[in-house]
Amino acid sequence: MEELKQKIINEGQVIGTEILKVDCFLNHQLDVAFLDRVAKEFYERYKSQRIDKILTVEVSGIAIAVLTAMYFGVPVLFAKKLQSKTLNEEMYEAQVHSFTKKIDYNIRVAKKFLNEEDHVLIIDDFLAKGQAALGLAEICDQAGATVEGIGIVIEKDFQEGGSILRDSGYRVDSLARIVEMNEEEIIFGEE
Amino acid sequence: MEELKQKIINEGQVIGTEILKVDCFLNHQLDVAFLDRVAKEFYERYKSQRIDKILTVEVSGIAIAVLTAMYFGVPVLFAKKLQSKTLNEEMYEAQVHSFTKKIDYNIRVAKKFLNEEDHVLIIDDFLAKGQAALGLAEICDQAGATVEGIGIVIEKDFQEGGSILRDSGYRVDSLARIVEMNEEEIIFGEE
Repeated sequence: MEELKQKIINEGQVIGTEILKVDCFLNHQLDVAFLDRVAKEFYERYKSQRIDKILTVEVSGIAIAVLTAMYFGVPVLFAKKLQSKTLNEEMYEAQVHSFTKKIDYNIRVAKKFLNEEDHVLIIDDFLAKGQAALGLAEICDQAGATVEGIGIVIEKDFQEGGSILRDSGYRVDSLARIVEMNEEEIIFGEE
Repeated sequence: MEELKQKIINEGQVIGTEILKVDCFLNHQLDVAFLDRVAKEFYERYKSQRIDKILTVEVSGIAIAVLTAMYFGVPVLFAKKLQSKTLNEEMYEAQVHSFTKKIDYNIRVAKKFLNEEDHVLIIDDFLAKGQAALGLAEICDQAGATVEGIGIVIEKDFQEGGSILRDSGYRVDSLARIVEMNEEEIIFGEE
């Protein structure tokens, strides 16, 4: 998605060769008019599939998931990262390792909201080592739901998440794939 | 908002006299078509004000904030609850006490995204003891920004948050105000 690549170049900030900060439009401040065009792009790519539910994980995936769900006319389900006092039903659960924060955490979805009849589009803001997406896909497997695809805003193609997911047979649509980056330039690959 | 009250009655689950679970449409699964009508209601109430930015706090405020921001054509800024590795600018910061989780935490907003020229609409899903909203308002004060109002989906009117905010001079628009609730019934007050 050309507009996304330009936005990353113009507004993103690369730290070292692995960290890309896009908190001006995707992770802290949300440029909703722009994110709505990102959501429309996901809709264009998946509109011929049956999509019953958009699945994401808190926090940064929620905005994109909500805007995408508006196009499909379906609900969003966001996996929670921490057990909260008021969430105590039977849950689907998967373990996720955060390489950024160097911790393992569990993501959970209430069983009542996902079942074997659901065709799911997984949405997330970033794909790096693929841990969050794999956790969400595992939750769909536990529910017997069908994963129609995984829509990612920015893929760090120099990390292994995309390969792992594609090799596992998942359709992955990343709207910008970064092959290499440093503080001088960002090189994009084929979408 | 009548449709919201009906939805709370039909789909909400009261535990004891203080906990209302609405994870079927607001906190876990998101009924985006419905939440879009909630967002439109906020727009109707604030469309004559100057609104430059919607401010909320992760996690559950984000969906409503994004949909509301679409109507105003402005960005969302969501305060973060934890310091993350890639967020290290100068931050506005306020301390918030969670009575549910019995912890204090800090919420933070990058200074570059909020300044004295901004007219802000604060949006959140719940108002109970008012801690999150007060923290967001404090961040606006630090930035010198103008708080045009505080839009809340569900206010627990039997807790003190609404009174504290209104007594402090803030305009608070809660689309459903619960005066009293138990496992048999939910009593709403005047909006």
